[in-house]
Amino acid sequence: MSALLKQRIAYKPFLDKIKSAEELIPHFKNNQYIGWSGFTGVGGPKAVPTALADHVEKNNLKGKLGFKLFVGASADVDIESRWADLNMLQQRAPHQVGRPIANAINDGRTAFFDKHLSMFPQDLTYGYYTLKKEGSKQLDISIIEATGIDAQGNLILGPSVGASPELVHYSDKVIIEVNTKLPSFEGLHDINMPELPPYRNPFPVTSPMDRFGTSNLPVDPSKVIGIVESTTLDSVGENTPSDAMSQAIAGHLIEFFKQEVSAGRMPENLHPLQSGIGNIANAVVEGLADSHFENLDVWTEVLQDSFLEFFESGKLRSATATSIRLTPKGFERFFKNWDEFSKKLILRSQAISNHPELIRRLGVIAMNTPVEVDIYGHANSTNVNGSRMLHGIGGSADFLRNAKLSVMHTPSARATKTDPHGLSCIVPFVTHIDQTEHDLDVVVTEQGLADLRGLSPKVRARVIVDKCAHPVYKPILTEYLDRAEFYAAKKKSMHEPHILRDAFKLHVNLEDKGTMRIDSWE
Amino acid sequence: MSALLKQRIAYKPFLDKIKSAEELIPHFKNNQYIGWSGFTGVGGPKAVPTALADHVEKNNLKGKLGFKLFVGASADVDIESRWADLNMLQQRAPHQVGRPIANAINDGRTAFFDKHLSMFPQDLTYGYYTLKKEGSKQLDISIIEATGIDAQGNLILGPSVGASPELVHYSDKVIIEVNTKLPSFEGLHDINMPELPPYRNPFPVTSPMDRFGTSNLPVDPSKVIGIVESTTLDSVGENTPSDAMSQAIAGHLIEFFKQEVSAGRMPENLHPLQSGIGNIANAVVEGLADSHFENLDVWTEVLQDSFLEFFESGKLRSATATSIRLTPKGFERFFKNWDEFSKKLILRSQAISNHPELIRRLGVIAMNTPVEVDIYGHANSTNVNGSRMLHGIGGSADFLRNAKLSVMHTPSARATKTDPHGLSCIVPFVTHIDQTEHDLDVVVTEQGLADLRGLSPKVRARVIVDKCAHPVYKPILTEYLDRAEFYAAKKKSMHEPHILRDAFKLHVNLEDKGTMRIDSWE
Repeated sequence: MSALLKQRIAYKPFLDKIKSAEELIPHFKNNQYIGWSGFTGVGGPKAVPTALADHVEKNNLKGKLGFKLFVGASADVDIESRWADLNMLQQRAPHQVGRPIANAINDGRTAFFDKHLSMFPQDLTYGYYTLKKEGSKQLDISIIEATGIDAQGNLILGPSVGASPELVHYSDKVIIEVNTKLPSFEGLHDINMPELPPYRNPFPVTSPMDRFGTSNLPVDPSKVIGIVESTTLDSVGENTPSDAMSQAIAGHLIEFFKQEVSAGRMPENLHPLQSGIGNIANAVVEGLADSHFENLDVWTEVLQDSFLEFFESGKLRSATATSIRLTPKGFERFFKNWDEFSKKLILRSQAISNHPELIRRLGVIAMNTPVEVDIYGHANSTNVNGSRMLHGIGGSADFLRNAKLSVMHTPSARATKTDPHGLSCIVPFVTHIDQTEHDLDVVVTEQGLADLRGLSPKVRARVIVDKCAHPVYKPILTEYLDRAEFYAAKKKSMHEPHILRDAFKLHVNLEDKGTMRIDSWE
Repeated sequence: MSALLKQRIAYKPFLDKIKSAEELIPHFKNNQYIGWSGFTGVGGPKAVPTALADHVEKNNLKGKLGFKLFVGASADVDIESRWADLNMLQQRAPHQVGRPIANAINDGRTAFFDKHLSMFPQDLTYGYYTLKKEGSKQLDISIIEATGIDAQGNLILGPSVGASPELVHYSDKVIIEVNTKLPSFEGLHDINMPELPPYRNPFPVTSPMDRFGTSNLPVDPSKVIGIVESTTLDSVGENTPSDAMSQAIAGHLIEFFKQEVSAGRMPENLHPLQSGIGNIANAVVEGLADSHFENLDVWTEVLQDSFLEFFESGKLRSATATSIRLTPKGFERFFKNWDEFSKKLILRSQAISNHPELIRRLGVIAMNTPVEVDIYGHANSTNVNGSRMLHGIGGSADFLRNAKLSVMHTPSARATKTDPHGLSCIVPFVTHIDQTEHDLDVVVTEQGLADLRGLSPKVRARVIVDKCAHPVYKPILTEYLDRAEFYAAKKKSMHEPHILRDAFKLHVNLEDKGTMRIDSWE
């Protein structure tokens, strides 16, 4: 037993449960329902999943030891990817990241479903994901990473909370991986256990830094079948840096925020901000750190390295999320300034960070990147050409539906193999809809910002094409609109004019010819 | 001044403001932004809108006196229809009922946008609907129907609350129509005024009958430019009776509820119920009244005549909504048993009745009827063939997104002019999406019930077609699925298989040939 591990376990009865990852392998059987901690690639278990993958490899069990795997969002990408390649993911929900996992889903080897991240843990505890499970309706085993165990046996979680409260609550057995390579994150968390209707209470949060849970995660000791030391750090890659395109988007947005403040529709320090992952999100954070805005708050699901600079700029007053997804360098910086950062940061469960009750009450400004947006303001966040899954809906709809200001930001066009502007991110009809026209206030590309509030669809469409479409696609989309209005006038269907036989023509052209640049609408 | 009117006005300073509807006409100018009370056809103003329509007719002002009209949902259908025919509706939001209004929208005469009914009043007070208005950003005038005015000058509302709190709060001028033909509804309401972020509090509601507002609606007396007597009752038509189709749907649903209770996923008295308008909704209520379920609660947006029987059956313990849309006969019954009914009923603002915070917390069971549902579980609630607006999204997405159990019920097929089964309500790809696959748990038709919880899209599609599709369309849809899976396998896009060039083929066939029964997929 490592001395480091012993130090981290203040609850003495758990010392008897320390096991090696290999010793726990016999608990795992084909077809089991299992849960992992983790969110956006951090805080997931590593030792036991790796031992299981090794076990499958060594014993030629590919296709014979598979699981229904539930994770708050995504766990460690490398480990999950190994599981996908070894066909250990029979089923996966509600979100995933990593090319091999997406391949398994799109090859038909892994049955995947995505769900709003606020609802996933709740529906799990309702029993909705184990309807057909034999015997106990709970998950068979959950594996939760912690950075320590307190004297009462509660878990001191690490860089993410995610769905861990619901997973430990709703599993027959629990395995705890104590990561001794990470310092303890004690004090950063505010943990709430799930409650079932009809007896639920309001969440007493009126300001982003309000706490109403416990510091650590309670777990029934009788469920704990093993405590394993983990010495692997999360493998978070470098963040995509901002570029001219994303900086242009950030510029439009910050200009818009200024106008909102001067029109009196927002206070000087804006409203709590939610932003996603990726280079546009980073550019927005950089832009805000450079702006004149002060005392900003963040209410979001994941924080990235760019938030460290945001804190250091003095402009960010507080941040709350369910995950702090830092690169190794980022964590180093984070721990160097622990006293400073930890005062201004809270990690909550995803059921709370993404809860409509709180997003709506606080008046969050939500900003997300879609696959594509259509001329009437519907967005596709998940499926390329309607069928090929990327990652899942994540928390995008939790935030965009409930925010005070709902923003979709995207480049106006992307390159395909044969055409530097082969793909327009503004299309006549999105091939999958995750956010509806009723959910978005603003669409912004490097070309400009379309303010959709209070506009009827026909007007909205002209504004989106005019402000946001790439110059290559502006005439193509305008012609579609002209034709659709002419067609709809004859049919007396002028509310949201479409020509259904042409609605996916750009996408079909992309499939057939590698570009959305059609020759003509005829 | 009618003695009846004087009796109803306990706040004496208002007696000086009594005017005829005609006297108020000069306040109304072309292009104004105006608000009306009303929700689902009841509680809207009648005297002043009628006087304005007469004024336009008499003075040949068609096209010269038009307004941007905001109503919580729909006001009196006959009066609004007159306005539509007289081109008095330049713009309308967020929901409407009545053929002439839909015609004006689909002809392109009225610019309409629909919005989640919980968000509409909030976005109005944020100033989102008056961005381009000159001068004051508030509405110019709101006309609110009341059944009386209390001694403090607060409005005693009638059969609906809707968006009246936000309308009086966010208007420069207010006209009150006191309806002396209706008895006073005092005691039925629980009124909350809008609050703006960042200073909002949790709603202290943990049970459907919890009150936390005031009985009557406060209004700033200095805004009140006139008090008008109204003697017109709401014109609510007879409800569509249930039939074999809707009773079959209700039967499937009640059987499903029994299974949920016996599986322990729901308490014996279920969870608070939300149901919409129409014959399926009526059949479900009738079915529940005949069932063994007891102590049921309703948390919904509108109550219809069928709820009177539901109360009388002794099965319904309480009901809360934002509107009680009764026929004249229904209201008679209601007032005869006022002491009994009024104890068990609360009318709230639509910002509260439809608020995600409360729907989610209480674990509501939501049931709605769409235009069509697709094989992957997306629903179209608003636009026929993608373009022709019916009524608007209403509260369907407020409830379906946030409910514990989200149900879409629809006949499996409908008749067209030339084909008794010309229209399948289960289609490959819905032509407009209001509810996404992430929002629905159950789809039910007279054919059967598809339980979608925890299913990945390919499995879900087979279950929907198998359980819900009409026999005429089962082979057509199955062939689409087979072909789409084959196609997607080649493209490695197996998550949600579609063939985009064929996805709307049933709808195009309907436009061209009057039926969705295609000859073949080739």
